[in-house]
Amino acid sequence: MLKKYLLLCFLMGSASSFLAQSTDKDAFFIKNIHNAALTQGKSYEWLTFLSTQVGARLSGSPQAAAAVEYTKQMLDTLNLDTVWLQPCIVPHWVRGEKEQISIVQSNTIGNIDLNGVALGSSIGTGKDGVAAEVIEVKSLEEVDQLGEKGIKGKIVFFNRPMDATQLNTFAAYGGAADQRVFGPIRAAKYGAVAAIVRSMTTRLDDVPHTGTTFYSETERNIPAVAISTNHAELLSQLLKKESIKIFIRTTCQHLSPKLSYNVIGELKGSEFPEEIILVGGHLDSWDLGQGAHDDGAGCVQAMDVLQIFKRLNYQPKRTIRCVLFMNEENGQAGAIAYRDSSVAKQEFHLAAIESDRGGFTPRGFSCEGDESIFEQRFKKILAWSDLLEPYELRFQKGGSGADISRLKPQKGLLFGFIPDSQRYFDYHHTDIDRIEAVNKRELALGVAAIASLVYLIDQYGL
Amino acid sequence: MLKKYLLLCFLMGSASSFLAQSTDKDAFFIKNIHNAALTQGKSYEWLTFLSTQVGARLSGSPQAAAAVEYTKQMLDTLNLDTVWLQPCIVPHWVRGEKEQISIVQSNTIGNIDLNGVALGSSIGTGKDGVAAEVIEVKSLEEVDQLGEKGIKGKIVFFNRPMDATQLNTFAAYGGAADQRVFGPIRAAKYGAVAAIVRSMTTRLDDVPHTGTTFYSETERNIPAVAISTNHAELLSQLLKKESIKIFIRTTCQHLSPKLSYNVIGELKGSEFPEEIILVGGHLDSWDLGQGAHDDGAGCVQAMDVLQIFKRLNYQPKRTIRCVLFMNEENGQAGAIAYRDSSVAKQEFHLAAIESDRGGFTPRGFSCEGDESIFEQRFKKILAWSDLLEPYELRFQKGGSGADISRLKPQKGLLFGFIPDSQRYFDYHHTDIDRIEAVNKRELALGVAAIASLVYLIDQYGL
Repeated sequence: MLKKYLLLCFLMGSASSFLAQSTDKDAFFIKNIHNAALTQGKSYEWLTFLSTQVGARLSGSPQAAAAVEYTKQMLDTLNLDTVWLQPCIVPHWVRGEKEQISIVQSNTIGNIDLNGVALGSSIGTGKDGVAAEVIEVKSLEEVDQLGEKGIKGKIVFFNRPMDATQLNTFAAYGGAADQRVFGPIRAAKYGAVAAIVRSMTTRLDDVPHTGTTFYSETERNIPAVAISTNHAELLSQLLKKESIKIFIRTTCQHLSPKLSYNVIGELKGSEFPEEIILVGGHLDSWDLGQGAHDDGAGCVQAMDVLQIFKRLNYQPKRTIRCVLFMNEENGQAGAIAYRDSSVAKQEFHLAAIESDRGGFTPRGFSCEGDESIFEQRFKKILAWSDLLEPYELRFQKGGSGADISRLKPQKGLLFGFIPDSQRYFDYHHTDIDRIEAVNKRELALGVAAIASLVYLIDQYGL
Repeated sequence: MLKKYLLLCFLMGSASSFLAQSTDKDAFFIKNIHNAALTQGKSYEWLTFLSTQVGARLSGSPQAAAAVEYTKQMLDTLNLDTVWLQPCIVPHWVRGEKEQISIVQSNTIGNIDLNGVALGSSIGTGKDGVAAEVIEVKSLEEVDQLGEKGIKGKIVFFNRPMDATQLNTFAAYGGAADQRVFGPIRAAKYGAVAAIVRSMTTRLDDVPHTGTTFYSETERNIPAVAISTNHAELLSQLLKKESIKIFIRTTCQHLSPKLSYNVIGELKGSEFPEEIILVGGHLDSWDLGQGAHDDGAGCVQAMDVLQIFKRLNYQPKRTIRCVLFMNEENGQAGAIAYRDSSVAKQEFHLAAIESDRGGFTPRGFSCEGDESIFEQRFKKILAWSDLLEPYELRFQKGGSGADISRLKPQKGLLFGFIPDSQRYFDYHHTDIDRIEAVNKRELALGVAAIASLVYLIDQYGL
C-alpha cells in the first residue's frame, strides 16, 4: 500500500505543490482539534448516557425515541445554527420472549440449551416452537445442491466461520455474512423449517451475535437464529457422529411501522453554504447490549465534531452538518428519507463521512465517489497526507458507509472512518457491546480524526 | 514522519534495490507467520495461565518462582535446541498490609480514605503510621525552591498530570514519571516525612498505579505512595481552600535478596550460529493485578515466536533466542546477569527485540544501536518496509527496551516492539492489569509482527 502511495505522490507531484501552499496554520489547527478532543471532548460522556441511560435502541422501540430526544437535547446545547428532526417511517420488529434453542436428541450429550438469539427481522416459531433434525452446510450453494430432497422438513445450520487470518476483520465479516443475510430465506425456498447461523465473530466464545436476515412479505420465511461459536463448534462435532434434533422457540413479531426521526444539527457555511460536509453515524442499534460501539460511538463522534468546532470558535466556510441516521440496522428508512429530502431540496453534499466501525484507535479513511470525478478528488486529498501522518491517519480507496452511500449521485466524496478493526467483531450485535468495551481516548481520537478531515475539506474544498 | 521516510528511501535508493532481490517467498512466509499466529498461536493460552494461575509476580515472590517454572515447562514442550535458567540475585521488596492513606483533617469533607498504594521500593511508615500537613508541588524543581523551610515535617504531594494531549502515551508518561521515581527522595532531602504521587495515567479514575521509586541505602528515604487521579484532583481542590492533614500507614519492607532466574530458550542457527537474534520480555511484574500487559504479554509473545517457527518447520540461519528477563521492574538484575554472561561468553547479538509496551495492535518497531553503524543498518531495515506495510508495521528511530539496551556495546540493532499505546496507561502497574484487558487477536498480531521481523533479520542479516 505504501509503495502505491509513493508512486501516486511522485507521479502526480501534487503532494509537494500542496505542501508549498499549505501553511503551519493547518498543522496548528489540527493539533488544536486533537488537544480539544482529548481534553474537552464530550463524546465519552454522551456515549455513557446513551449506553447506560437509554440503552439498546432498535427502530420503533421506546429507547429509540429516547435516543432521538437525548441527542437532540445535547445538540440543542451547542449553539448550532439549526437543529432539527427529520421524520421517517421505520419497521418495528420485536424479539419477544427470551429464545429457547435446545438440542433435544443426542445420544452423546442428551439435552442441552444452546446460547442463541433470534436474527433481526426473522419470524417467530410461535409459542409451541419447532423441532427438527439438523443439517449442516457451509454455503448458500450447498443449500442449492442439497435441494428440496436434502432440506425439506429440516433445520439448516450455516457454519462457515469468519476467516480469522484476514487482518481486516470487516473483510472476514464480508466473507461470511451472506449466510446470515441470505441463508434462512434460501433454506426456506427448499422447505426448511428453521435456520441456525454460526455467530459472526472470529472468537470462540459463548456470546451469540444477532444481525439482520432477509425478510420478504412475498416469499416463504422461516424462523432464524444465531448460536455462539462455541456451540456451533459443539453442534458440528456432534453432527459428525450422530443425527441431532433441535428445538427452537422464538416469539419475534413484525409490528406496525412507526414514525421515527433522523436527528440533525448544522453549522452554516460563511462562504459556500450550499456545499455541505456531512458527518454522521446511526442512532438505532440492535436490541441487545447497549449499542455502544455500533453505533453509539459514531453518533457521539459526529456530535462532538460540531462541539469541538464551536469550542474552538471555528467559522466554517462550508456547511458542516451532523446527521444521526435512524434505522440503519434493519431498513435504512432514515438514510432513504434523508436522501429523498436532500434530492427534493437540490442539495449538494461535497463530502460525507460516516463512522460506523466502532470507537477504536483511528487508522484513517476509506473513500469512494462517482467515477467521473473520483480520481481527481482522491489525488487532492492524498496531498493532505503529510498533515494527517503525525496522527497515523491514511487514505485508502473503498466503501464509505451504509447511510451516506445513497448520496453518491450527488457526486461528492464519501468517506468511511476507519478505526482499528481487531476488537469490533468481539462485540458487534451482542449483549456485550457496552460502554465498558469503549476506551475514552480511542473514542476521542476518532472525533479528532474526523474533525481534522472536515477542517481540511472545509478550508480547501475538493 | 512519512515525508522523512520518503526522503530516506529515495535518497538512498535501497528500497528498490532490495525489492528487486526480494522474492515472493518472503511475502508468502510472512503471511504464513500471520496465519499461524492468528489460528495456531499459544500466546493467549499461556498468558491466561500466567495471569490467572500464577498472577502478580514481583521479584522474590513465590509467584515469580512459579512464573519461572511455568514458562520453562512451556518452553520445554517446544522441542527447542536448548532451554535453560540463568541465575540472578534479585531484590525482595514486599508491600506488607493493605495501605491506609486518609485525609484526617479537612473542614470541608471531614475524614476520608484515599485510593492509594505504596510505591515499589519505598520504605514503610511503621505500624503507627505518620500524619502531617500536605504541600502540593508540580515538579522536582519546585521542591528545591521550597527548600527545607517549606518542606520539613510535611508530606509532599506531587501532582503534575500526564499530558493527555500527547498522541503517544509513553511520551506523556516520560514527561511525568520523574515525580514518582525521584520525587520522594528529593522531598526527603529537605526533611519531608512522606510523599504522595499522583498516579501515572491520563484517565480520571479511582485506580492507583504503583511503580518504582528511587531507593538509596545511603540517603534518607521516606514512605511514598501513589493515589488515584480522582483523589489527586480532590486533594488539590481541597488544598486551594484549606490546610489538609493526611495519615499514611504502610508496612513495606526490604527483605534479603533472593536467587531467581531469567528463562531462556533457543533455536540454534544453521549457518551463522554465533549471530544471535534475541526476542524478549520481562517475567516479573508489580504485585498488583496480574501483570497481564506488563509484561506477561511480552513474555508469551517472545515464547510464541519460537513456537510459530517450530510449527512452520522453519530452520533459522542464525540463532534465535527467547529471553524472559527477571526483575525489570525494580532492579534489572536479570538484564545485568544476562549482559554479564553474554560478555563473558563473547557473544554477539546481531539484533534484540523487546516487547514491553502491552499486548495491543502492532504499529511497528522503534530502533536504536551503536552510532558507528546505526544509520547503515537502519537503511537496511527500511528496505523491508514494503514487506511489512500490508500489516501496517513501520520502523522509527527511538529507544528499544530496558532489558536489551544493556547489549548496545555489542553493536547489534536493538528494537522496541511498538503496539498501539492508547490503553496501556489505563492498566499499567495496577490491580486492573488483568487478562480481561488483553485481546487475543491483538496479542497474536504482536507475535506475528515480531516473528516477521526476526525472519527478515535471520534471512538477510543486517
